[in-house]
Amino acid sequence: MEGKKLRIAMLGLGSVGSKVVELVTKNSEYLYQRTGVQVEIVYGLVRSILEEDKKKLAKNYQFQLTDSYDDILSDDSIDVVVELIGRVSPAKEYIVRALKAKKHVVTANKDVMAQYAHELLPLANQHGVTIGYEASVAGGIPIVNPLKTQFSLDTITSIRGILNGTTNFILTKMLNESLSYEEALTLAQELGFAESDPTNDVEGIDAAYKVMILAQLAYHVYPKMEDVQIDGITAIHPAQLAVAKQFGYKIKLLGEVKAIGNELSLRVAPALVSDQTSLALIDNETNALQVNSTQIGQSFLSGPGAGAAPTATSVLADIQALIEKKELGTSNQFAPVFFENLEFTFLAESPAEKMGIVMKKANASQKFTNDQLADIQSIHHVSIADDAYEWLVTNPLTSEQLHDLLESLNRMGSVLGALPFVD
Amino acid sequence: MEGKKLRIAMLGLGSVGSKVVELVTKNSEYLYQRTGVQVEIVYGLVRSILEEDKKKLAKNYQFQLTDSYDDILSDDSIDVVVELIGRVSPAKEYIVRALKAKKHVVTANKDVMAQYAHELLPLANQHGVTIGYEASVAGGIPIVNPLKTQFSLDTITSIRGILNGTTNFILTKMLNESLSYEEALTLAQELGFAESDPTNDVEGIDAAYKVMILAQLAYHVYPKMEDVQIDGITAIHPAQLAVAKQFGYKIKLLGEVKAIGNELSLRVAPALVSDQTSLALIDNETNALQVNSTQIGQSFLSGPGAGAAPTATSVLADIQALIEKKELGTSNQFAPVFFENLEFTFLAESPAEKMGIVMKKANASQKFTNDQLADIQSIHHVSIADDAYEWLVTNPLTSEQLHDLLESLNRMGSVLGALPFVD
Repeated sequence: MEGKKLRIAMLGLGSVGSKVVELVTKNSEYLYQRTGVQVEIVYGLVRSILEEDKKKLAKNYQFQLTDSYDDILSDDSIDVVVELIGRVSPAKEYIVRALKAKKHVVTANKDVMAQYAHELLPLANQHGVTIGYEASVAGGIPIVNPLKTQFSLDTITSIRGILNGTTNFILTKMLNESLSYEEALTLAQELGFAESDPTNDVEGIDAAYKVMILAQLAYHVYPKMEDVQIDGITAIHPAQLAVAKQFGYKIKLLGEVKAIGNELSLRVAPALVSDQTSLALIDNETNALQVNSTQIGQSFLSGPGAGAAPTATSVLADIQALIEKKELGTSNQFAPVFFENLEFTFLAESPAEKMGIVMKKANASQKFTNDQLADIQSIHHVSIADDAYEWLVTNPLTSEQLHDLLESLNRMGSVLGALPFVD
Repeated sequence: MEGKKLRIAMLGLGSVGSKVVELVTKNSEYLYQRTGVQVEIVYGLVRSILEEDKKKLAKNYQFQLTDSYDDILSDDSIDVVVELIGRVSPAKEYIVRALKAKKHVVTANKDVMAQYAHELLPLANQHGVTIGYEASVAGGIPIVNPLKTQFSLDTITSIRGILNGTTNFILTKMLNESLSYEEALTLAQELGFAESDPTNDVEGIDAAYKVMILAQLAYHVYPKMEDVQIDGITAIHPAQLAVAKQFGYKIKLLGEVKAIGNELSLRVAPALVSDQTSLALIDNETNALQVNSTQIGQSFLSGPGAGAAPTATSVLADIQALIEKKELGTSNQFAPVFFENLEFTFLAESPAEKMGIVMKKANASQKFTNDQLADIQSIHHVSIADDAYEWLVTNPLTSEQLHDLLESLNRMGSVLGALPFVD
């Protein structure tokens, strides 16, 4: 290991891998400024080094394309192996060999971490290296590392979440566009949200892997797939979604880890979620997690569950944690970089905004002037109890325009307030 | 510094401080098992060592009560100073002196971090120690550390949030219980959600401190209070809330950091939030943050913004990070503790659950039997397009009871599906 470098070998250069290469390169100067560590992509392991797009990527980002994992393992200058091959074989074997060669591993592989964490985590520990797997659950949502830090000394009573983007997309389209399950699946496949063989997603297997990893992190147990009760969404009928909606419920495929006394219930199943809850608002391919714990109470996190950029960002967060580890001893905190030369200024006033104004007119028959109407998009009369109000929605106005309008409106009655709409 | 101990001095033993003492003690055996590091509370700094409740706390948890900060600073065995005094003076001076004495600092102090981070962070770096301040923004929600890790290599376009629990509580009560601002404030004070002098909360100052810290973390700039445009909630009229609700909006006090080109807009202001959004669902004293960034897209986090237990949990997360730092070199990862002797089992079937069933009866006039009705809480007839369905809400049923009911219902027509309600 060279002193001030962090040298990376990429296993797999698909959409996530390519994005990791791009983002590491893009951020390397910034990371060097902050930490004094130079992060470099050195190898890219692929099945064939003859593929044109891989060759182009390697040339652009100046790393070595190889089809020999032995070359990577025997290179002592490599600090980190980033595994983005997916599925169990050969990914798991590659991870084992990297750990034994005392290389840190960063992976997005939920299949491997769900089923083999009990073997891999002690192995890493034994060889003095770490496995980062933030990207393995809920893509761009930080949940693996927070469960190891923020929540690790709290007592978690349950974690419930929308952990599979494909099925959430399908259920959303079935409801909003009255599609059958088959039609929504076809749409998901066309848009790239579902694989040609969608079994793992629609049968709940993918969500079950994530439930297993959440159970590991929250309860330090290593459940097997057969410990999870799994129901998928293939039997959901569009009329179920439509009827449930009439009564204020959405149907979501939920993954759940729940402690009941000394027992732990692990489940993936479609369920009825009140549309007054945060989980019900999570539509399309978005993921979400609700963590219930004794000290913190209820926490809720949502964000993209998949996609190259969000997943690569989680991979980068794990790589960054290794830089921090590497830097320890000389400085155990990222030095802040002061961006004094950037043109950050603070806006003296906000740009034009659409405002909602509530007012009581002194005289109900009084008309708005043409000048006022030029600034107003719509006017609505509202009665609350015995009082009559006007609800005015303005066009986008600058602070100055708003000031003039309010002054003019205040001559007609009393403006209770003007508030900006946020998008 | 002793080899395998992490020795803590507490500054301030109020509700958060007492909770930190309790949680550290409760978790010390577990932390020792996982990391080999013994975490100990050694001192509690208070204004008077004669107060009975402090004396009792010190005796219960076996630490030394002192009114001399010099004693703490001159004790080389102290690794960490946990500052929970609040406000700027003398807290800021205490933090400076701790850093200069090469002691790590963990603090929940937003006033200090908002205004003096530009001075404190480099000072910590210079002395080879760190400042943990996860608890300073949004209490129990992990946001400070995620912004340093998960989001730090992403480009943040905006952060918007409900950052003050007191004002969100007041606005919620004004809307839901048609209270005036003054009535809702009095209620908040009675329930302990607002201080006797509520100025900092209701005028938006507290939220502005948090906006300043978020700007530091997201953009590495150090804004001053006057760079933030601040509006509080004292002028909000209950009729505004009621009228906005009729048009599908809630009024929330939002804190916002937003990059517009090369300019940065910092703002605290009440705004109109569509009730179809996650932010609008955040009621009472809960806080929430919505982070928009280039790679991840939109992330959303919510949880308790204050309270002794959530805040103490964030303090503990920062203390735990120091253990990890201390452990580096021998083992750079928390060793997993296998809980094989605990009575965790995996439930073969779920406990009794209330189910929602959608069915089409073969014959509209056919009656449910008394046996069926015993399991059913309510029955609703629904028409969708030209089809008629029954929406049945069951009593809590075991898997076996559900199985029998479905078998019996299926003889009357076709059950489209039975799904559990989640609470």
